[in-house]
Amino acid sequence: MAQPVLIVGSIALDTVETRFGRAAEVLGGAATYASIAAAFFAPVRVVGVVGQDFPQRYLGLLTSKGIDLEGVRIEPGRTFRWVGRYDHDLNVAHTIDTQLNVFEHFRPEIPDSYRTTPYLFLANIDPTLQVRVLDQVSKPALTASDTMNFWINGKRAQVIEVLRRSDASLLNDAEIRMLTGAENLVTAARQVLDLGPSCVVIKKGEHGAVMCTKTSYFAAPGYPLEVVKDPTGAGDTFAGGLIGYLAHVGEASDANLRKAIVYGSVLASFTVEGFSVQRLERLTHNEIAERYQHFREIASFEA
Amino acid sequence: MAQPVLIVGSIALDTVETRFGRAAEVLGGAATYASIAAAFFAPVRVVGVVGQDFPQRYLGLLTSKGIDLEGVRIEPGRTFRWVGRYDHDLNVAHTIDTQLNVFEHFRPEIPDSYRTTPYLFLANIDPTLQVRVLDQVSKPALTASDTMNFWINGKRAQVIEVLRRSDASLLNDAEIRMLTGAENLVTAARQVLDLGPSCVVIKKGEHGAVMCTKTSYFAAPGYPLEVVKDPTGAGDTFAGGLIGYLAHVGEASDANLRKAIVYGSVLASFTVEGFSVQRLERLTHNEIAERYQHFREIASFEA
Repeated sequence: MAQPVLIVGSIALDTVETRFGRAAEVLGGAATYASIAAAFFAPVRVVGVVGQDFPQRYLGLLTSKGIDLEGVRIEPGRTFRWVGRYDHDLNVAHTIDTQLNVFEHFRPEIPDSYRTTPYLFLANIDPTLQVRVLDQVSKPALTASDTMNFWINGKRAQVIEVLRRSDASLLNDAEIRMLTGAENLVTAARQVLDLGPSCVVIKKGEHGAVMCTKTSYFAAPGYPLEVVKDPTGAGDTFAGGLIGYLAHVGEASDANLRKAIVYGSVLASFTVEGFSVQRLERLTHNEIAERYQHFREIASFEA
Repeated sequence: MAQPVLIVGSIALDTVETRFGRAAEVLGGAATYASIAAAFFAPVRVVGVVGQDFPQRYLGLLTSKGIDLEGVRIEPGRTFRWVGRYDHDLNVAHTIDTQLNVFEHFRPEIPDSYRTTPYLFLANIDPTLQVRVLDQVSKPALTASDTMNFWINGKRAQVIEVLRRSDASLLNDAEIRMLTGAENLVTAARQVLDLGPSCVVIKKGEHGAVMCTKTSYFAAPGYPLEVVKDPTGAGDTFAGGLIGYLAHVGEASDANLRKAIVYGSVLASFTVEGFSVQRLERLTHNEIAERYQHFREIASFEA
């Protein structure tokens, strides 16, 4: 039976513009994307914060996916907002405005009922807060963590402390190069393995993802999408799908990690087909199974 | 039985500097790399030109690989020389000097004995000369062609004429984006398919390669090398391995095209492990088979 997953991170209202249009004040945030993705595979518990202006229908959307919101606090004030734009290079988000609002003073408090959750995903937040989460939980069976360039530059020691206490580190190619100073991604991955995690996953956008452990290397292809409406949340969806699948199968064997990376890629490939969580919201298990099969066809060649 | 392959392109003396060292006046050129790679799988015939200064030992090296040099003319003057440097980004070659020498007036003449060769690879040369080759041969069973940014910008109509008459188009990601104006590689590949070829292969360096046909999409991973001593010739080696394998099996089915792309990737992964053709020169069929198997492990995940 699927084990529960605890996800800690941002819940936001995003305003995003791409060449396919604009979406204003829509549901966003790393914990949001990761939770919806993980909920396809396992029970999900979220710790985050929103303001009093947070639309009830978005809370309803999350609970309708079976996501437990006991850990989401509704604080006086406005919800975290991000305004961004993507130009031709969909790997680069141009931030137009960030209003932290209630997120500025976010101090994650893990409810008692969440403290023994066996699967933990620390989405990208201040690594000091990620450590605070780790200090509040019984050591999970599997801890995965994400971060970003801002923290790698500004709070390097804390980022490394989180890595030391993580089983799986999820970084994109630019982040792992920045963290290690190594241009070569294999070298960079080995250096992160030396910091503590037994598994490093590098997200490469349209080029797919690779996984490095001490004994194994796996490359998942990028999914050949002609229309990427909005890349926001792709990495968080990937992470959610990955940890959700691992919680579903209950064992992080090499074979399961590979499948988890492909499921993460499958989920992320749907996310970018629409703005916000529009595509994820109406996604079915059949569609996930079909696209997983398509990933197999894309990657397969005979001996 | 393996069918013969005809390869037309440059034969050069390269001087290359990378952070792993420097190699001066070493064997290079697109036709050289492609021929040595293809010769692991099939008989190879080369059409090219060198100067009277071209070292006899390099001709000996090529013939020792079973490569037929009847089509290589030794002209009065000096051999084509390229001097280049790679910095951190190994995808970008910085040209320090180019001396065309005898290559400047290269007009490929296909020997009578070569005109019915069933497999043809047009390496990157002036597309006017590529057309000249196509006019001299009986339509091959399979024609693959390469080009570069310089010709896409400067001789677009001729590049398109070559594509119209090719079965397989091999381009890197920057080239196909330049050719089509499409940022999305799937869109770009479809546009090239509309120009004539039934198969488009996009070389993505460390990110591997993808193949697009009207009905199929395949992604081969990049090989996880920590040390890339000299990336020169990787794309040409890839092309040679690919067409050599197809000539070996004698049928460009979808399954064979996928395997050919992996064999091309295998050969290219060896090329970059040394300067010039040093690594290819001592490469064995056993090593190729082992690395092919490793590619399978890297790409595999269960249903």
